Amino acid sequence: MALSTVSALAFSVFLVVHNDRFQPFEAAVGFAVFGYFFTCMLIPRLAPMFVKRGLFGKDMSKVGKPVTPETIGVIPAVCYLFLMILFIPFMYVRYYYNQSDNSVALSEPASLFPNGKLSSFLSGMLCLESMILLGMMDDLFDIRWRHKFFLPAIAAIPLLVIYYVDFGVTSVLIPNFIRNSFHIAGTAVDLGIFYYLYMGAVAIFCPNSVNILAGINGLEVGQTVVIAALLILNDLTYLFMGDIASAAYSVHLYSCSMLIPFMGVALALLRFNWYPARVFVGDTWCYFSGMVFAVVGISGHFAKTLMLFFVPQIFNFIYSAPQLFGLVPCPRHRLPHFNAKDGLMYNSWTEYTRETPLKPVMAAVFPILERLKLIRLVRNPQGRITKSSNMTLINLVIIWFGPKREDVLCEIILLLQFLVGFVMLALRHTVIPILFGFDNSWNMLQRFYM
Amino acid sequence: MALSTVSALAFSVFLVVHNDRFQPFEAAVGFAVFGYFFTCMLIPRLAPMFVKRGLFGKDMSKVGKPVTPETIGVIPAVCYLFLMILFIPFMYVRYYYNQSDNSVALSEPASLFPNGKLSSFLSGMLCLESMILLGMMDDLFDIRWRHKFFLPAIAAIPLLVIYYVDFGVTSVLIPNFIRNSFHIAGTAVDLGIFYYLYMGAVAIFCPNSVNILAGINGLEVGQTVVIAALLILNDLTYLFMGDIASAAYSVHLYSCSMLIPFMGVALALLRFNWYPARVFVGDTWCYFSGMVFAVVGISGHFAKTLMLFFVPQIFNFIYSAPQLFGLVPCPRHRLPHFNAKDGLMYNSWTEYTRETPLKPVMAAVFPILERLKLIRLVRNPQGRITKSSNMTLINLVIIWFGPKREDVLCEIILLLQFLVGFVMLALRHTVIPILFGFDNSWNMLQRFYM
Repeated sequence: MALSTVSALAFSVFLVVHNDRFQPFEAAVGFAVFGYFFTCMLIPRLAPMFVKRGLFGKDMSKVGKPVTPETIGVIPAVCYLFLMILFIPFMYVRYYYNQSDNSVALSEPASLFPNGKLSSFLSGMLCLESMILLGMMDDLFDIRWRHKFFLPAIAAIPLLVIYYVDFGVTSVLIPNFIRNSFHIAGTAVDLGIFYYLYMGAVAIFCPNSVNILAGINGLEVGQTVVIAALLILNDLTYLFMGDIASAAYSVHLYSCSMLIPFMGVALALLRFNWYPARVFVGDTWCYFSGMVFAVVGISGHFAKTLMLFFVPQIFNFIYSAPQLFGLVPCPRHRLPHFNAKDGLMYNSWTEYTRETPLKPVMAAVFPILERLKLIRLVRNPQGRITKSSNMTLINLVIIWFGPKREDVLCEIILLLQFLVGFVMLALRHTVIPILFGFDNSWNMLQRFYM
Repeated sequence: MALSTVSALAFSVFLVVHNDRFQPFEAAVGFAVFGYFFTCMLIPRLAPMFVKRGLFGKDMSKVGKPVTPETIGVIPAVCYLFLMILFIPFMYVRYYYNQSDNSVALSEPASLFPNGKLSSFLSGMLCLESMILLGMMDDLFDIRWRHKFFLPAIAAIPLLVIYYVDFGVTSVLIPNFIRNSFHIAGTAVDLGIFYYLYMGAVAIFCPNSVNILAGINGLEVGQTVVIAALLILNDLTYLFMGDIASAAYSVHLYSCSMLIPFMGVALALLRFNWYPARVFVGDTWCYFSGMVFAVVGISGHFAKTLMLFFVPQIFNFIYSAPQLFGLVPCPRHRLPHFNAKDGLMYNSWTEYTRETPLKPVMAAVFPILERLKLIRLVRNPQGRITKSSNMTLINLVIIWFGPKREDVLCEIILLLQFLVGFVMLALRHTVIPILFGFDNSWNMLQRFYM
């Protein structure tokens, strides 16, 4: 092992065990470093076993279409879970039971989370572990699209059930501007069962939206790294500016503690999945990482803020909808087209033939989209549309910026994701508090996290 | 769906939601019925997908060695996990948060478990889910024997970590006869870190000991059904005879609540794995079921009692040891030999050749074992031992009872397991309390489960 690795690991051990008031935060960084090195060590050792078991894919955007191990995302995911379980003693206060006088006392610094919150954390871990299991089932058995869409909802059951038993609070605050417009007296409304449906919807949305923006080396992992970075930035604004005794401080410290170790294993996976990819991540990773965000958002009660960082994914879904729901013919693959001659990626096309004609409604809409630079059309000499570019964000970026090499294409999309997210982050802390009358994450949580 | 299935499911729903003082018990029965039917429905639907993915084995003890789906145990295991998670609201008291006066009140009958114990339950679930994940890895990637032996220890980490954070009590009671012999003043001794090693050892022992007694149709699942039945019998002695307000009552109600739904899914698997087997269970099932027992024993603080029901497994391990540790040559398979002519199973042999001679020490021991009817030997005309029966419990039963058909052989072993366990159960409630001075599970737990 290189000297740099040894010293990094020694440093991570120091961060974990070092005892001061920054503690769960420092330990999270320690576990991230450890997770990075551990994942980097495991992937090259285990990947050949995946290929042997038939878990591999062909990289369509390379010369020779090399065989690449698939489903490798399960390795960092399982690493993350075990790291988080080992993290527990450094995250939660250990109560010490005194046998002589039957009393209970604290034996660790008060900067840690109280033990009473442990079951909420454990429900998140159960939910993630279920997601890994179901994701693996999907990668192994190729579950049908309309079935796999709901796998995250099944995996989220532990989260919802324990939320019901442990908290059960289902009211949300009403924004000021709505209260004023409709002359509502109360500040909160009890959503009842709809709150659980809402949480379930978040849990379905996050994993699937990561899964849908995929297909070029590094993009699946890259987007999760960017989202995690934005969420950590959001947490840090509370940690640096908020009151250390406030509920928001506690919530965002918790969020950080979940996301920083995630960052460690995700970066390790990115190293192997980056162009030219040595491994593919599989649906397991998309589901798992999306669920990490859902768990953090739901248990931190900032699921609405979370959505702000998924704008490119939401755009990609809406933009894809005409093809997903059959308004526009949808070929088996909508990946951009790799040109072996110049090594660049070009947008791919949907062709309109007598069997798959262009629907009249889209024939009307397409020229408008074309003018907005949201689609590229090819017409025959008679002016009839014969081809349109496939409607995914990846193809759109090629239309905007021209043909690019696969890694440059991925960098542009990730940069877009970061910039949009950063603008949203700024809006979140300026415009939104004015609309809601207060920073809504603070008040709601006061009761649970104090 | 048949009318009988519909009425059984309706009955199970009634048991789950019916509200009376027998509640977690009745709901457990309801979930068991539901688990049985659900598993029976899933196995035939999913098994062909396993074969397609290359997860199958050949049944060596049948004419024509038919291809049989392998690793099917993962289906009931995942079913069990999701059932137990849905069980949570019927098992734990739901605290209701009153917004107006900031108070917390109970909203369910007091016969349920208090919420404070939820994290201990969740740690058990995490441990089982980790075991399923690692078991699947083993079935997929054929991990080496000396590595897979420790997989349960890794899966047990959640259990140990949360035990540390949540309870952290590591003292055990000293039996009366030892206290008197060594003139010890205290009643308990603090084992510290050794208590965790002991829990880890239990977690390694149970899954591996189920895994080691295997090889004929129905035996892997059958033994877990018998052990679960014995444990439930043990629980019922406390539930019927104990004080309803006592700690022991609570602990054994908890144990029942875990084991009765387990029984449901295990019986469904047994139906498909019984002779002639339509599915194989895989290491996943052996690990998973063994871990269910370990979790129940550890979190119920009756790990020592648990061992009493594993006597045939312990015997099988000790009896196998000379072959496992190389004192006697160990062929690749030690399964009994199937004779296609009469359809019966005969014991298999280890042969001694010039390359694999009989070691002198065993040449001395074997005649003694032969006299004790613990081995069958074949000698050449010069009186030298040329063959000995393979040292597994299955072969030994054939030696004792003669060649049998596969299902009869399995029935005999399961009956032996039940009878030995039943005798142990009787001893547990008669002789042992006298030695320890009191029924040791009661006192220890009083502090945690009251």
